[in-house]
Amino acid sequence: MTSHTEQSAVSVLGLGPMGRALAAAFLDAGLPTTVWNRTPGKDRELAGRGAVGAPSPEEAVAASRLTVVCVVNYDAVDAIVRRGAVTGALKGRTVVNLTADTPARARDTAAWAAEHGIGYLDGAIMTPTTTIGTPAGVFLHSGSEELYREHRPVLDALGGTHTHLGEDIGRAAAYDIALLDIFWTAMAGYAHALAVARAEGVSAQELAPFAKGIGEILPPLFELGAEEVDNGRFSGEGNPITSAVSSMAHIVHTSESHGIDAGVMRAAEGLARRAIGLGHGTDGFLRITEIMNPR
Amino acid sequence: MTSHTEQSAVSVLGLGPMGRALAAAFLDAGLPTTVWNRTPGKDRELAGRGAVGAPSPEEAVAASRLTVVCVVNYDAVDAIVRRGAVTGALKGRTVVNLTADTPARARDTAAWAAEHGIGYLDGAIMTPTTTIGTPAGVFLHSGSEELYREHRPVLDALGGTHTHLGEDIGRAAAYDIALLDIFWTAMAGYAHALAVARAEGVSAQELAPFAKGIGEILPPLFELGAEEVDNGRFSGEGNPITSAVSSMAHIVHTSESHGIDAGVMRAAEGLARRAIGLGHGTDGFLRITEIMNPR
Repeated sequence: MTSHTEQSAVSVLGLGPMGRALAAAFLDAGLPTTVWNRTPGKDRELAGRGAVGAPSPEEAVAASRLTVVCVVNYDAVDAIVRRGAVTGALKGRTVVNLTADTPARARDTAAWAAEHGIGYLDGAIMTPTTTIGTPAGVFLHSGSEELYREHRPVLDALGGTHTHLGEDIGRAAAYDIALLDIFWTAMAGYAHALAVARAEGVSAQELAPFAKGIGEILPPLFELGAEEVDNGRFSGEGNPITSAVSSMAHIVHTSESHGIDAGVMRAAEGLARRAIGLGHGTDGFLRITEIMNPR
Repeated sequence: MTSHTEQSAVSVLGLGPMGRALAAAFLDAGLPTTVWNRTPGKDRELAGRGAVGAPSPEEAVAASRLTVVCVVNYDAVDAIVRRGAVTGALKGRTVVNLTADTPARARDTAAWAAEHGIGYLDGAIMTPTTTIGTPAGVFLHSGSEELYREHRPVLDALGGTHTHLGEDIGRAAAYDIALLDIFWTAMAGYAHALAVARAEGVSAQELAPFAKGIGEILPPLFELGAEEVDNGRFSGEGNPITSAVSSMAHIVHTSESHGIDAGVMRAAEGLARRAIGLGHGTDGFLRITEIMNPR
């Protein structure tokens, strides 16, 4: 289908911090790489390392069988690829979209790609730019397994671990959303805890060693909790949701007594109180998953 | 001051799961232990292991120089100790209150104790009942260092690590509140992530290995963030708060598109948007501590 006269092994659209890290990893792996960015000048360092700077996105995608896109969101992806010249140039080629957005947008982009004879894989990068090209990188992929296998050798040049989550194109974005949900909620909790601690005369660095201890008990609890959530049975033995709500009320009260917004904790407490009101007071806290998303 | 005719080394008031674990650890360490609980029958197993069951709280506290209290909250503590007979029996003795509540309640209880010639230490237990009597237990204490040193040998019988946080009696409760804030907010984030994942066809056990990975990156970030918060300088390099808000918006949108309450994330997003509105868009996410608690 394709002419196979491409000059590069991979093209990278979008040269923000993550796009530059991706292109650099491809170059470090010895892959001929073509790059393009909406605003010029971002490819200077990469050009010095051997990258070919394309003058337009259509010329960039025409230079390789595989194009990796990593921009701010899918509105930005659409603004680049859903234009006649670029869409035309992508026909018979493959796009791996590592931009973060929602599962719905991933499905919509896949439908557009199918309509135009473009191979499409959707992915998510779960680790910071500094991990790209190192064993610490974590990449999630979804879409056609055949297509994934075909391009896996190029993707492997990014280092780290790559997991194909299944043919449902929305899966990588769904994992991404869920994992960022855990991350940003936990960071919001940490920020709030530090604000309350400071109001009580406790510095962040005094609290930090104990906060680390709390962080360390989370991973095994996540694992235990996952089984409960899948089975719909929530053991509150030793730590019922009524006891969680008692702690939450102390947190809200202390926070607000210092004039510190407790909106995040109030929202969480509200969910827990709803679970108790529905008769689940002796269950464990993860019962609130059923309050938010009843079976 | 005291007559030193006490029959036990320590008395335990409150025999819920945590109180029973504390009493059992004292007994295992060979300390003569007197126990009491508001509703009878909770001391049966402990009596079999050598504990003396007291018929009233005043007789319980009279049996030892040191009384450890661990009940549901300080309302329950007050209902036991702020009665003439018990207050009188405590005169010249010491109470270590391991009940969880707010720093304000700890300060109030300390004032009451001082008024009645009662030695008072306030503490918090940061680990589950199963860790009591093992090296994994984490105990925080605040109040008079002299009093703490005097009773440290008995407290050491509980195993684990004991940290004296300072003379300010509210410190143990402040740490407790802040650490539980991190814990319960993170758990609320995990529950929400699992609810959204299920709506997207991803099971909890499919997500769990990646959720563990997110959990594992938190402790080092907590440490780095503490320095930023203490210094009031929030580097957004590589991960500005504008990028966090973009992820948060995707999470809220995906959640609500499935009819799943996104109140926790909406509250966190609101704080981040306020920081951006105040001109801190290139700062890191922990800038929101200053939004919640301005210097």
